[in-house]
Amino acid sequence: MSSVPSFFRYHVFFCTNQRAQGETCCQNHRAKDMQLYMKQRIKSLGLNGEGQVRVNSAGCMGRCDAGPVVVVYPDAVWYTFVDQEDIDEIITTHLQQGQIVQRLRLEVQP
Amino acid sequence: MSSVPSFFRYHVFFCTNQRAQGETCCQNHRAKDMQLYMKQRIKSLGLNGEGQVRVNSAGCMGRCDAGPVVVVYPDAVWYTFVDQEDIDEIITTHLQQGQIVQRLRLEVQP
Repeated sequence: MSSVPSFFRYHVFFCTNQRAQGETCCQNHRAKDMQLYMKQRIKSLGLNGEGQVRVNSAGCMGRCDAGPVVVVYPDAVWYTFVDQEDIDEIITTHLQQGQIVQRLRLEVQP
Repeated sequence: MSSVPSFFRYHVFFCTNQRAQGETCCQNHRAKDMQLYMKQRIKSLGLNGEGQVRVNSAGCMGRCDAGPVVVVYPDAVWYTFVDQEDIDEIITTHLQQGQIVQRLRLEVQP
C-alpha cells in the first residue's frame, strides 16, 4: 500500500501488560525484562535507530493466553519466548538474517 | 515474507510516552486521550478484534520531534494528529477504506 519505505526496518513490540494478580498476562513471564534485554542487545549490536530496529513496550495486545508475546512489524510475525536464548534467536535469525524462527512462532489461529 | 495473514488487519500503536516536564513528547499532546478515543470508536463500530483492528498504547517510538505520532501496521504508515476529527479521519479513510490520509502523514525523513 505504501511506496515509502518503513521508518524502521523492524519495529518490535513486546506486550508488557500487568493484569491483576493471578490473571494470565505477559508480564507474569518477565516480559519487561526480556524487552529491555532485546533493546540493549540491539543497541550493542549497532542495529538500533532509523532504518534499522526499534524495540518497544506496548499495552495489552489481546493475546494473553498465548503470552508472553512479541510481534515484529511490518512482517506481522508473532512469537512467544521463555528466556534470553529465545530473544537472541529472534535477533539473530529474524532481525539480522530476515528469517522466521518457526520454533517460537505463534499460530495465527490459536 | 509471511504466508500467514496478519493476526490483526490493522495494528495501531500510539506513543503515549511522558517525558520529564518541558521535554518534547507525545503525551504533551494528549496522546493517551486520543488513543482511548480511537479504541472506543473502533469498538463502537464493531471493528475491534482478531482479523480486524487493535489499538494499542506504546512506549517512546523515537519520533518525539514529530509527535504526537501514531503508526499503523503492517502498512508502516505514520501519522500525526491534533484532535478527534483527525482520529476520525484516520479511522474512516485508513482503517475502513484502506487509503492513506496524506494530510496527516509523516514523511519518513523528517
